[in-house]
Amino acid sequence: MSQPFRIGIAGLGTVGVGVIQILQQNAQVLSKRCGRSIELVAVSSRSKDKDRGIDLSAYEWVDDACHLVGVHDVDMQELDAVIELIGGSDGVAYDLVKTALGNGVHVVTANKALMAHHGYELAKLAEENNVSLAYEAAVAGGIPIIKAMRESLTANKVSTVFGILNGTCNYILTQMRESGADFADVLKDAQDLGYAESDPAFDIGGIDAAHKITLLSSIAFGIKPDFENVHIRGIEEISSIDIDAAAEFGLRIKLLGVSRDINGKIVQSVEPCMVPIESPLGTIEDVYNAVFVETDFVETPLFTGLGAGRAATASAVVADIVDLARGIKASTFGVPVNNLLEASRIDLGETVNRYYIRLIVLDKPGVIADVTAILRDNNISIESFVQRGRDPDQEVSVVMVTHDAKRADIEGACMKMSALASVSANPCIIRIEDI
Amino acid sequence: MSQPFRIGIAGLGTVGVGVIQILQQNAQVLSKRCGRSIELVAVSSRSKDKDRGIDLSAYEWVDDACHLVGVHDVDMQELDAVIELIGGSDGVAYDLVKTALGNGVHVVTANKALMAHHGYELAKLAEENNVSLAYEAAVAGGIPIIKAMRESLTANKVSTVFGILNGTCNYILTQMRESGADFADVLKDAQDLGYAESDPAFDIGGIDAAHKITLLSSIAFGIKPDFENVHIRGIEEISSIDIDAAAEFGLRIKLLGVSRDINGKIVQSVEPCMVPIESPLGTIEDVYNAVFVETDFVETPLFTGLGAGRAATASAVVADIVDLARGIKASTFGVPVNNLLEASRIDLGETVNRYYIRLIVLDKPGVIADVTAILRDNNISIESFVQRGRDPDQEVSVVMVTHDAKRADIEGACMKMSALASVSANPCIIRIEDI
Repeated sequence: MSQPFRIGIAGLGTVGVGVIQILQQNAQVLSKRCGRSIELVAVSSRSKDKDRGIDLSAYEWVDDACHLVGVHDVDMQELDAVIELIGGSDGVAYDLVKTALGNGVHVVTANKALMAHHGYELAKLAEENNVSLAYEAAVAGGIPIIKAMRESLTANKVSTVFGILNGTCNYILTQMRESGADFADVLKDAQDLGYAESDPAFDIGGIDAAHKITLLSSIAFGIKPDFENVHIRGIEEISSIDIDAAAEFGLRIKLLGVSRDINGKIVQSVEPCMVPIESPLGTIEDVYNAVFVETDFVETPLFTGLGAGRAATASAVVADIVDLARGIKASTFGVPVNNLLEASRIDLGETVNRYYIRLIVLDKPGVIADVTAILRDNNISIESFVQRGRDPDQEVSVVMVTHDAKRADIEGACMKMSALASVSANPCIIRIEDI
Repeated sequence: MSQPFRIGIAGLGTVGVGVIQILQQNAQVLSKRCGRSIELVAVSSRSKDKDRGIDLSAYEWVDDACHLVGVHDVDMQELDAVIELIGGSDGVAYDLVKTALGNGVHVVTANKALMAHHGYELAKLAEENNVSLAYEAAVAGGIPIIKAMRESLTANKVSTVFGILNGTCNYILTQMRESGADFADVLKDAQDLGYAESDPAFDIGGIDAAHKITLLSSIAFGIKPDFENVHIRGIEEISSIDIDAAAEFGLRIKLLGVSRDINGKIVQSVEPCMVPIESPLGTIEDVYNAVFVETDFVETPLFTGLGAGRAATASAVVADIVDLARGIKASTFGVPVNNLLEASRIDLGETVNRYYIRLIVLDKPGVIADVTAILRDNNISIESFVQRGRDPDQEVSVVMVTHDAKRADIEGACMKMSALASVSANPCIIRIEDI
């Protein structure tokens, strides 16, 4: 039997406790699968005395997470890997990971913000010190998409990665559709049920999904992770009018992370998109995540599963630990750091899609003539147009689906429409992804 | 730059040619991802002169595949890996793989029959010689399920693996449902379209799926692959009556490979099963494959993709080659060979499910009383019962769905029913899997 694989865990929130539960409950099967045991040596968290519902007495307690991998404690120097589950793109998490890698200790993390913001620097440090920086749990916990993209699809040139990457948003959009309720009400219910954070800004604003698409994009195209170049829009503006209208067109609204290679130039976005109900992503509902990849050889593989939650995320963390214990190493973003490219970018404004446009207008003569004239002047032709009349001079919604059009033209037209006196709110535009 | 990774390919059929196309077309990106180039040194196949639509002039031709890894040719001794794409559970494929592993050469194969029949022996040989035996392409080509089960889900104890593992059968069942046509007609169409082999026995008889569930079962439960203990039944007996009846019950018929752990005892089967239309496997149609795994921590991950075809299979082969070139090694069945267990088995007769039973009876007095008495005497209670009357004394179908019942009781009851004078054909029973 080989030496035990010695680890320390920093951060004992939901996921940290979940990891310890798996290590305790499945110790025997894990030893068998690794050919060696995984030994949790030390843990660190903010509060030692909190009751977490598990027995921590067998593990050394360290107040300062960095001491897990620092030089102060002789025992701790011998850790093979540290598991960073503190969270946050900077602060303790960043310090810990940097110290660990610098000291030749493998790192497993579930921290998408850290990886999206500092991934390149940390990957370089890992490579220089000949250790691994593993982060399967950072993207869509229950779906082994990092490994799938980095290893299983490696024969292929990727053209597009699509992801439903935020379970909270997908839950809210599903509930809105099923109940007919408005965004604010469903969000409140989701918070009451524990499906949304009390501060949901990162989720519903698209930041969380943007962290994740940044990482998938890096692996897909062999480029340095570049969070700054993700066009981000959340789901706050989606109304039940849009959800119902989508259904009429055979479409469903999903918060999609998309990274696409257009003739060698990359465009990254997170925004609500409409996808065909019958498409692989159209049927992914509630808190489920899914990733859909278009490549040159394998036709469109789809990966589905729970994106978050203790068990799914902890399971992904433990899979990374097992990889390391088995001696499986992989380049952080799928290629050696020196091979990672600075991506050429193309602006979202230059991309071409069908678009859904919803206006709230006063129902009086000439409005539609004004609107259609603006569309014509911006090179936009209309595929479908639905106006349901109420009484004259009342507000009424007008929804349209365009033929393929340049995003910049769509936005230009919408700016002009919102300046019309008879248009009473900013037009809502939603990209259509014909997956 | 490290040394090139030198490979030879044996077998230049559809998949072999697909692998060479990927290696040629994506050479640059593969080198980047591996940090070294993949160099195809030699190829071997039955006929040297056949036009395969690709340029083979750069590769050494070897008539006898075993010479790729044998001792006769000095150059060939230096191969890092041999890619076995000959097929068949014995003969040249077996000899080649054995010789390669024995001589310390890694093997990549797409050969499910070979692995299902000789997997344990070959895994042992690989381990003794410190080389890898990789076979991602052997199961559901476009779905990286071997790696997912072996590495990504490794934190979890698996309770059940469900797979739609044969694209031909899934295509036929989908077409039968959509067109209302009978099995024989749809099979003929599938053969004309190239979706079914001219000798389709391995596919429609369930053998192909049984090879695959054997391998998934081994990884899931850490047991020696045991093809002999797969209960196998094909789709030949499925009629359009059953397909329509399934739809009435909200179910759909799929050829399912299932391996299940029931209190530490394993039962493996391939047979047509009914699954809820709304379940993850109910919506997998046409030539698509899917694998659904139930575990103790991660909730039911689903993997979907094309199960066969040149591109999907070749892509999986190349992914294995890249793993080896990167130095990623894994135990063949997820644990070191010495840790593989001889499984305890439970007979399918002992398992409990809901069942669908379809009878063809003569519509005359007393038939239903006889049938229901037999069910009662075999401890089977009925959930739904549908008989659509025609004229008295005509043949009519009676379909039933039972409550949970023991398979042995179901089979016993069906034997007794088929002995009734008024029952004009053997009853068709189909297991219901409430996924």
